[in-house]
Amino acid sequence: MSSRTASLRSLSRATATTTATSPGIRLFSATARRAAPSAHRALVFREHGALNDALSAHTFRALSPPGPGRVNVRVRLAPVNPSDVNVVEGVYPNKPSPETLLPPDSGGTQDFSVAGGEPVQSVDGGEGTGEVYVPGNEGVAEVTAVGEGVSGLEVGDWVVFAKTQPGTWASARQVGARDVIRVDKDAGEVTAAMLSVNPPTALCLLREFVPLKEGDWIVQNGANSAVGQLVIQIAAQRGIRTLNFVRSREEQANNALVKHLGALGATHTFTYDALADRTLTAHIKQLTHTAPPRLLLNCVSGPQTTGLLRLLGQDAQLVSYGAMSKQPLALPAGAQIFRGLVARGFWMSAWYAAHARKEREALLEEVVRLKLEEPRHTVFTVQAGWSDEEAGRRVREALGVQGRSPGGEKVLLRVEDPVV
Amino acid sequence: MSSRTASLRSLSRATATTTATSPGIRLFSATARRAAPSAHRALVFREHGALNDALSAHTFRALSPPGPGRVNVRVRLAPVNPSDVNVVEGVYPNKPSPETLLPPDSGGTQDFSVAGGEPVQSVDGGEGTGEVYVPGNEGVAEVTAVGEGVSGLEVGDWVVFAKTQPGTWASARQVGARDVIRVDKDAGEVTAAMLSVNPPTALCLLREFVPLKEGDWIVQNGANSAVGQLVIQIAAQRGIRTLNFVRSREEQANNALVKHLGALGATHTFTYDALADRTLTAHIKQLTHTAPPRLLLNCVSGPQTTGLLRLLGQDAQLVSYGAMSKQPLALPAGAQIFRGLVARGFWMSAWYAAHARKEREALLEEVVRLKLEEPRHTVFTVQAGWSDEEAGRRVREALGVQGRSPGGEKVLLRVEDPVV
Ligand SMILES: NC(=O)c1ccc[n+]([C@@H]2O[C@H](COP(=O)([O-])OP(=O)(O)OC[C@H]3O[C@@H](n4cnc5c(N)ncnc54)[C@H](OP(=O)(O)O)[C@@H]3O)[C@@H](O)[C@H]2O)c1
Ligand SMILES: NC(=O)c1ccc[n+]([C@@H]2O[C@H](COP(=O)([O-])OP(=O)(O)OC[C@H]3O[C@@H](n4cnc5c(N)ncnc54)[C@H](OP(=O)(O)O)[C@@H]3O)[C@@H](O)[C@H]2O)c1
Repeated sequence: MSSRTASLRSLSRATATTTATSPGIRLFSATARRAAPSAHRALVFREHGALNDALSAHTFRALSPPGPGRVNVRVRLAPVNPSDVNVVEGVYPNKPSPETLLPPDSGGTQDFSVAGGEPVQSVDGGEGTGEVYVPGNEGVAEVTAVGEGVSGLEVGDWVVFAKTQPGTWASARQVGARDVIRVDKDAGEVTAAMLSVNPPTALCLLREFVPLKEGDWIVQNGANSAVGQLVIQIAAQRGIRTLNFVRSREEQANNALVKHLGALGATHTFTYDALADRTLTAHIKQLTHTAPPRLLLNCVSGPQTTGLLRLLGQDAQLVSYGAMSKQPLALPAGAQIFRGLVARGFWMSAWYAAHARKEREALLEEVVRLKLEEPRHTVFTVQAGWSDEEAGRRVREALGVQGRSPGGEKVLLRVEDPVV
Repeated sequence: MSSRTASLRSLSRATATTTATSPGIRLFSATARRAAPSAHRALVFREHGALNDALSAHTFRALSPPGPGRVNVRVRLAPVNPSDVNVVEGVYPNKPSPETLLPPDSGGTQDFSVAGGEPVQSVDGGEGTGEVYVPGNEGVAEVTAVGEGVSGLEVGDWVVFAKTQPGTWASARQVGARDVIRVDKDAGEVTAAMLSVNPPTALCLLREFVPLKEGDWIVQNGANSAVGQLVIQIAAQRGIRTLNFVRSREEQANNALVKHLGALGATHTFTYDALADRTLTAHIKQLTHTAPPRLLLNCVSGPQTTGLLRLLGQDAQLVSYGAMSKQPLALPAGAQIFRGLVARGFWMSAWYAAHARKEREALLEEVVRLKLEEPRHTVFTVQAGWSDEEAGRRVREALGVQGRSPGGEKVLLRVEDPVV
């Protein structure tokens, strides 16, 4: 436990927010190379399972130069999101495509391509050359080589990924140029690494379902999640008042959390347990009686969420985007029939799939403009000097079952190219 | 039990569908009267409770002539719907207004007015003159007297009620002329009695949520409910295919039910239990694979309904309009987030409140044009010769807890004016 803490703590925010970039060399030819590393590393799984069981580290041969329309990138930072945990567990609908990552010492050329639709060359035989899955749905990467016919992207540019399950828990990837979106380095490395999933989710949750104006109230659970903290900030920027619910914790931690969310702009923060006391319900009804909440954002589900329904006004929307409690959500028929409650889901991947590239870019640009506070996080570096065996062990130890730091913070992975 | 059956059985469909009307005398003056009965009777409750506990019969003084803008009506037939049961139980949001129905032998004039907004004169003192509630949300009535300034309604016309909780479980009522809608006698007495709640509900359920075209599939539970049978017929008229779910019953009854629903136009009828066998799911998926169902109509809720969700395609709507199981509905987050399932409610009362009178009339006219088969039903007559005591006892006995006939059929009440 203490070593886990130490290994996470030793990589502080200072590291996380380093935004210096190596200038790189601007290259157009697909065969050109930039201080090329001799190998890369990825975190992979072969079978579904718990994060701290299924993950291992895998060193693989340096990327070949990108073909036409493709680019090589060095992944700088990639978060561990709850959905990544679900992907490894096998309970998420999207799954990375299987890949064959050839070890650096094996023969033959590697026609490496990233997950998500493109063909993947399967290599027969050879120890350690079987198929693996590389998790990681978002991150920030730096372009290291550009294939023929690619416009609008240069070596040194920062990009985020525009298609699901690109496999970002790796030091390098080769991707289609149209599957990445250039981002401004001003955004900062941490923000950029977590740009494409949580902030646009928070933004969409607040604008796609119920028209909200200044002074309106909304309710959310899991309010201290990364998404929850972003919702608080965006709402506060717009004068929308938030009733935030979190799990109860030891008193001091609780006070610190309430204070932290308040500083981000939370109007009120309560624990689910506190709602068992009906006087709190009455108090909230009193507070909100001129504008009863018409939006409940849910990433928890389970009985606590059902309890929140009575805070809602007529014709409200319950928008579910997660189910951290792993329990279903029970809806009383009366709320739906007589009080017009509509319950629906939101999935950022579906939104991306349904919107044109221009709209996606506009969404990300809007996110950057909002200048949101990064959620609390820790960076875990998979160090160049570690063997695959050591790297795997340390990652499993650090991520545990939940993929969060011992302090409950979001973990960002920085996978370094291994020294081989 | 057998006497209950007998008393219900003795009043057959033949009785129920008698449509002959007494021509009546056309009267304009509010003071005029038509072969006026000396008293009326209502089924009433004073405290919420089970139907077979809370209900009693109450003879009350003959209506005074209707004032300006009002009409007196004789209620011909009024159904016992599940929502009426819930009203008596006190678990329904709409509740009739309290009324004071003066006994025929007490002094003073009775300023009787019907529930639902109009002021009700409260009479102090006097045994048996306390406040009561008259249940009954729909029914067909015949106009017996017309107040000044009422146009478009004549004595002898049939009307249905255009506002909620008019208290139709009575032999006579006085209502605002704008709170009734004239219906064509061609509709038939039983159809007219059940015109304003179930058939428009079935029609709205099929047209307000998912655009449906010929060949599409829908799923419904409680398929043998009155609403369910209407849904089957309307769907069949439009070439929409229905997957109907019912509770399992003893084999012969089951076969008879499947046959009956089939004759109405049901494409397939299954029991909830049968779905426990995954091969049925596979079979249905196979059947519907070119047009996976996008509409699930739910009046049952509870775990059986959650089980039906896996029959739905992408972006489906689950529309709840009842919860006969009295259990909440558990929604798996994945269905909402990844499969775009939207869960909402439908309430006919809210629809009426949100639509203008013209639209309501158009809806009822459309219902009549559909020429739908009446759901299976039995008529229970509260006979003129019975004392209030006997009438109350027999009603409680006949309706039981559920308000259905021993054969599970819908009960229609015909409350006769008592002989006093
Ligand atoms: N639908 C979409 O498109 C979309 C997009 C982004 C995220 N999400 C989902 O949104 C959720 C939050 O993501 P995130 O990245 O913001 O997560 P995060 O920062 O890792 O935070 C996780 C949150 O879940 C709470 N939690 C964990 N287990 C819980 C339990 N058993 N009961 C109640 N709360 C529990 C945590 O509360 P404690 O601090 O009390 O442990 C914390 O608030 C996840 O379910 C994720 O999959 C969905
Ligand atoms: N929202 C609205 O505006 C609106 C309008 C009209 C009706 N409704 C609702 O729609 C529902 C049906 O009304 P209706 O007049 O058509 O009813 P009905 O003809 O009296 O039929 C009742 C139905 O409920 C089923 N049922 C009873 N208890 C059940 C249980 N524990 N589990 C599963 N099924 C059960 C019965 O099945 P069995 O034959 O197996 O007992 C039957 O199919 C009611 O809930 C009513 O309140 C709502």
